[in-house]
Amino acid sequence: MNTTTEWLQAPAATPDDTARQAAEARQAVLTKPPGALGLLEQTAIRLAALQGSKRPSVEQLYIAVFAADHGVVAEGISAFPQAVTTEMVKNFARGGAAISVLARELGAELEVINLGTVNDPGPLEGVLNLPLAPGTANLCREPAMDEQQLARAMHGGRQAAERAKLAGAQLFIGGEMGIGNTTAAAALACALLDAPPEQLAGPGTGLNAQGVAHKSAVIHQALERHSQHLGTPLEALRRLGGFEIAALTGSYMACAQMGLPVLVDGFISSVATFTAARLCPGAEDWFLFSHASAEPGHRTVLDALDARPLLDLGIRLGEGSGAAVAVPLIRLACTLHNEMATFAEAAVSEKL
Amino acid sequence: MNTTTEWLQAPAATPDDTARQAAEARQAVLTKPPGALGLLEQTAIRLAALQGSKRPSVEQLYIAVFAADHGVVAEGISAFPQAVTTEMVKNFARGGAAISVLARELGAELEVINLGTVNDPGPLEGVLNLPLAPGTANLCREPAMDEQQLARAMHGGRQAAERAKLAGAQLFIGGEMGIGNTTAAAALACALLDAPPEQLAGPGTGLNAQGVAHKSAVIHQALERHSQHLGTPLEALRRLGGFEIAALTGSYMACAQMGLPVLVDGFISSVATFTAARLCPGAEDWFLFSHASAEPGHRTVLDALDARPLLDLGIRLGEGSGAAVAVPLIRLACTLHNEMATFAEAAVSEKL
Repeated sequence: MNTTTEWLQAPAATPDDTARQAAEARQAVLTKPPGALGLLEQTAIRLAALQGSKRPSVEQLYIAVFAADHGVVAEGISAFPQAVTTEMVKNFARGGAAISVLARELGAELEVINLGTVNDPGPLEGVLNLPLAPGTANLCREPAMDEQQLARAMHGGRQAAERAKLAGAQLFIGGEMGIGNTTAAAALACALLDAPPEQLAGPGTGLNAQGVAHKSAVIHQALERHSQHLGTPLEALRRLGGFEIAALTGSYMACAQMGLPVLVDGFISSVATFTAARLCPGAEDWFLFSHASAEPGHRTVLDALDARPLLDLGIRLGEGSGAAVAVPLIRLACTLHNEMATFAEAAVSEKL
Repeated sequence: MNTTTEWLQAPAATPDDTARQAAEARQAVLTKPPGALGLLEQTAIRLAALQGSKRPSVEQLYIAVFAADHGVVAEGISAFPQAVTTEMVKNFARGGAAISVLARELGAELEVINLGTVNDPGPLEGVLNLPLAPGTANLCREPAMDEQQLARAMHGGRQAAERAKLAGAQLFIGGEMGIGNTTAAAALACALLDAPPEQLAGPGTGLNAQGVAHKSAVIHQALERHSQHLGTPLEALRRLGGFEIAALTGSYMACAQMGLPVLVDGFISSVATFTAARLCPGAEDWFLFSHASAEPGHRTVLDALDARPLLDLGIRLGEGSGAAVAVPLIRLACTLHNEMATFAEAAVSEKL
């Protein structure tokens, strides 16, 4: 197991500007008023640049869901019991979870990587075990991970991205499952954005107002505890993140380095995206944003990333599910780009 | 050809409240935090009620695109020449238009009904000719249609809805093509909503600010011209609408009467929806809204309908294309509803 983070120094790949220009030129002559397909046009153009292709496509889709438990659950910050992380890993494997249903419908490759849950689900088909510990330490009182755990988690994410690339994926989705991980993601976002917990802490799986206030207080305490050590994104990630958040960050970094486009899910994934972009300037070129989550802090993170997501459906499930839901839109954007007739081909008159 | 409008008196069908309650109960026990799939949950529940089914489905999809020309184009209110209506009808038939590509991708039945274009496209495969006149009269100076034309256009829409029902459609999409039809739709919306033209007139296929101001002035003139005769929705539709807008309205009415759910496209379709809802109280129960168009007046019409559309992608193409783009989301909403495991099935713990 790789326990260094040297690979994080590699630069992000560069999108293909010639392909972008060709795609823009094509959109301008398809039989519709210029710009009439809105964000679908922009999405097809971006994908053409990222794939260096005249005919962008996201038929080949790879979904990696990272699962882990969080020591901070001891502070009473979740609406669901910690046992749910392991139970949901089993549900992923059995095909009953939202992301399982979506992966099936989309014909996507789905793998689950268990980086450390409190309960051991045992061997499960479709689940890769990469146990770092039975959950992180309580970030409210100590660093969530040690250096080795951080490096191994990020490398675990990198390996998932590499498996996706090897499998011929045209689009990578990272998902996450971990009771307590909106608290970790909010704390990390506070550190990276220098924002108050009240702006980033939300109901997660279903806290009431009192629960959200308590969650903010716990994050305040954590930021106070680690305040002298939050100067670098990597150290903030180690102290405030989680195994699955570090793995997501590693997977996004590796995708950006290899030039594999990423479709980002909700709040936690976006915090990992932001961390990756801070670690690797230019990485953000490779990130498409799928949806604005109902988790209120998501908007802050999306704004910091200057992201305009495709969907705003009030989804707040994680697992990569919001990203998966947006895939058909991107597929249609590509098909429209590739298959619509031009004004010349169809003998349709252009604008007056 | 039916030239009466008596059939418009029939009431809308009633959604199945028992099916709605069963669907709500099921959503509450699927393995996710309650409400975490946001608007997808609400969509599945609504469809269950509309289809009277435990397992809602929109696999069987019928798209009818109504095309016609508009006399008001003489006032110089469009960015594209009038010849484009006929040229696009040919493009639909040849499979090069956005809606053709989308219908193919979605496995949908697509039919085009030409109710009267200035140029005759001749016989085309997949195009049904129902010529009422070579375009409407100039609504700025006289009623767009006579009574017979209105009745026949609405009946043409009704027949399309009936063909959809007979073909086993689970969801109906009405589309439109007609250079000048945002002007007609905006004028009709002004009459029905008692709103100023400035609020409803927009760039359509691509007017600049000067063009939009002129369009508003033309609508003012039309509202002035017909002001003594806009007391009923049907008369407003006859004087200010268009053949394809009347046909859309008829198709939506027939769907509501037969109990066939409708997925509504953009600005023009929504104005037809509003007209149908005014003609037939309860019809709105059968209308799902696909997207918020970039055409600025659409927001006013959606608000009047108390509609929360699924998408907001800046699409402004018509043809039914925005509705078609939303279909995969609704399909995924149904599949998630039907196939996810319950907490009990998956042995997952519920909320604390």
